[in-house]
Amino acid sequence: LARRLAQVPPTIFSEMSALAVRTGAINLGQGFPDADGPPSVIASAVAALEHGANQYAPGLGVPALRQAIARHQQRHYGIELDPDREVVVTTGCTEGIAAALLGLVDPGDEVVVLEPYYDSYLAMIEMCGGVRRPVTLRAPDFRLDVDALRAAVSPKTRLILLNTPHNPTGTVLTRDELQAVADLAVERDLVVVTDEVYEHLVFDDHVHVPLATLPGMWERTLTLSSAGKSYSFTGWKVGWATGPHALVSAVLAAKQWLTFTSGSPLQPAVAHALDHEPDFPRELARSLQSRRDLLVAGLATAGLTAWASEGTYFASTDISHLGWDDGMSFCLALPEVAGVVAIPHQPFYDDEDAGRHLVRWAFCKEPEVIAAGVERLAAAD
Amino acid sequence: LARRLAQVPPTIFSEMSALAVRTGAINLGQGFPDADGPPSVIASAVAALEHGANQYAPGLGVPALRQAIARHQQRHYGIELDPDREVVVTTGCTEGIAAALLGLVDPGDEVVVLEPYYDSYLAMIEMCGGVRRPVTLRAPDFRLDVDALRAAVSPKTRLILLNTPHNPTGTVLTRDELQAVADLAVERDLVVVTDEVYEHLVFDDHVHVPLATLPGMWERTLTLSSAGKSYSFTGWKVGWATGPHALVSAVLAAKQWLTFTSGSPLQPAVAHALDHEPDFPRELARSLQSRRDLLVAGLATAGLTAWASEGTYFASTDISHLGWDDGMSFCLALPEVAGVVAIPHQPFYDDEDAGRHLVRWAFCKEPEVIAAGVERLAAAD
Ligand SMILES: CSCCC(=O)C(=O)O
Ligand SMILES: CSCCC(=O)C(=O)O
Repeated sequence: LARRLAQVPPTIFSEMSALAVRTGAINLGQGFPDADGPPSVIASAVAALEHGANQYAPGLGVPALRQAIARHQQRHYGIELDPDREVVVTTGCTEGIAAALLGLVDPGDEVVVLEPYYDSYLAMIEMCGGVRRPVTLRAPDFRLDVDALRAAVSPKTRLILLNTPHNPTGTVLTRDELQAVADLAVERDLVVVTDEVYEHLVFDDHVHVPLATLPGMWERTLTLSSAGKSYSFTGWKVGWATGPHALVSAVLAAKQWLTFTSGSPLQPAVAHALDHEPDFPRELARSLQSRRDLLVAGLATAGLTAWASEGTYFASTDISHLGWDDGMSFCLALPEVAGVVAIPHQPFYDDEDAGRHLVRWAFCKEPEVIAAGVERLAAAD
Repeated sequence: LARRLAQVPPTIFSEMSALAVRTGAINLGQGFPDADGPPSVIASAVAALEHGANQYAPGLGVPALRQAIARHQQRHYGIELDPDREVVVTTGCTEGIAAALLGLVDPGDEVVVLEPYYDSYLAMIEMCGGVRRPVTLRAPDFRLDVDALRAAVSPKTRLILLNTPHNPTGTVLTRDELQAVADLAVERDLVVVTDEVYEHLVFDDHVHVPLATLPGMWERTLTLSSAGKSYSFTGWKVGWATGPHALVSAVLAAKQWLTFTSGSPLQPAVAHALDHEPDFPRELARSLQSRRDLLVAGLATAGLTAWASEGTYFASTDISHLGWDDGMSFCLALPEVAGVVAIPHQPFYDDEDAGRHLVRWAFCKEPEVIAAGVERLAAAD
């Protein structure tokens, strides 16, 4: 194994989903819904398959999809994009992250990243020879510590890798928090790569503010998103990166060698989703909010107090309430003990103490599945 | 742009296909067919979309596809594979190449590679900080020079990156040539990564011999292939890497961070193709052979003598016959002059002289398209 990967453990999501399959446990781990997105979007993919969208798409993505992405950004955020220069389609947000880091980070460069961090951030920073500078979102409220963020920036900082709505904590960064990021980025002339894949999945009165919309930020922000989460087709892996031409070009420069292109018959269907199912993501968010409440209430019955999740698919709990000390051991035992799979926060931290007791639970599942999961937990007490 | 990409030009295929779209030229450049694969395979993808194969596939690929790949290797080559340990599904062969090199090549490692090389080989070796050691397949017959191969191996050689049937030359390495590779690999204890994506597209009496079937080679060979070429669905980007567990694991170690997984509804359809359309690739090869002949005859009429292509989608010519000296200039002028796009060999060589006069023409197009293309060439004379 090459050195760039020698220190990188395998993704926790594969491990825990394999455990769920092996043990027949209810999977409240990996974030994917068990109900598919709009039938009209499936019909659009069927039409694309049957009408010949089966050969290579252009490396940038099919024009109809890039145009639909531009319209989406305009409609939701008032962002005007040139679909030929400021958008590139990726194989999900994961490829967007990989290509952005391979395209921008040199060995020795520092990357400031929110902790807990998605495990592919760690892996890709490592693969690029970058040095991560984590800024911890701490329990109980998981807010951004602006002083810690400032302290993490150094002359070697190549970029800030942001994520809002934030996985795994469910934090949606406020306009004030984002303004602090923007002030710092402008002051220190930094690029920000922002993973906003849960952009539409926010609850209660929380509002997702795209970092790129703050004054002075467009020209230094690369925004990543995907149809998988907004439209409940996580297996399609059609995502995108938007931003100024230079940053989009850096993504393309790497991406063309990673996959060249992908999902030709799925790309037109995602264009259809963005244009013709504009209300689906908001309705999904409403439904997720009630499923969050169901999960949180059920966890409480099982003795686990969850923190309010403001967005995403996920809520987190402190498992020391149940007398456990270590989330990884808890999650490895849970399928046997309770027939449920959850995800420990531990792999997402440099600061071992900060994440040790925390466990993430997915509520993007059908209500019956969530109800059955929490019942098993309560019964296992 | 990160240093790892600073010296890597954009892929010639995107550039030339964009030129074809812009000028309305007939695209005999990028290798994709203009007729799709079997209707039953499309029907299988439709069924997968409609019956819920829309969420993340496992990182290794869906079990049904891995099992079908194992059956394919058994049926065609007598190779017995464990579908859970010796197969990983990738986003086309391109991701297989990227992940294999990221998983195996450290900075400073040497990679022995056939020249002309596919442009992603150059880019990924560069991105890994590897040093390429090209071994030239020289016109007019493009055979492997075994002495040159031996001379290219050094104590720093990490692996040999092979490609047979070979793009762009159309060479199908003979059993004797492959035996020479195998002898060297065993003698020097080398790993070989072999891109056999055109495995079924061989003509006349030529036979594709998988390197992994030679004595002593299974345990040191990582074989890459894809459904795109064998089943005329290049836009689906469902490929695979097969080999001993350690090599497959190195691919997975990188791939999980590049895309995690992709094409959930397309994977079962490719399983269907391998199991239920076993004769399609052979029939495609037969049809491609006659289209090769059509192209070669037409090129001759236009004053260009093509070398016999033994396999792949491609035939090559020496454009000095037309008084041109430089394939890149020729191909950039051709859309204007003749309304046709072709691919210069030049980007695929370190040895500038070896590839300077060579141009690659794709015959994976419908006969009418090929006929129209060569007519335009003859008219432009
Ligand atoms: C790409 S695998 C995991 C899916 C996901 O986003 C999560 O569970 O956090
Ligand atoms: C991945 S783009 C090019 C397709 C191809 O294999 C070729 O034209 O050589």
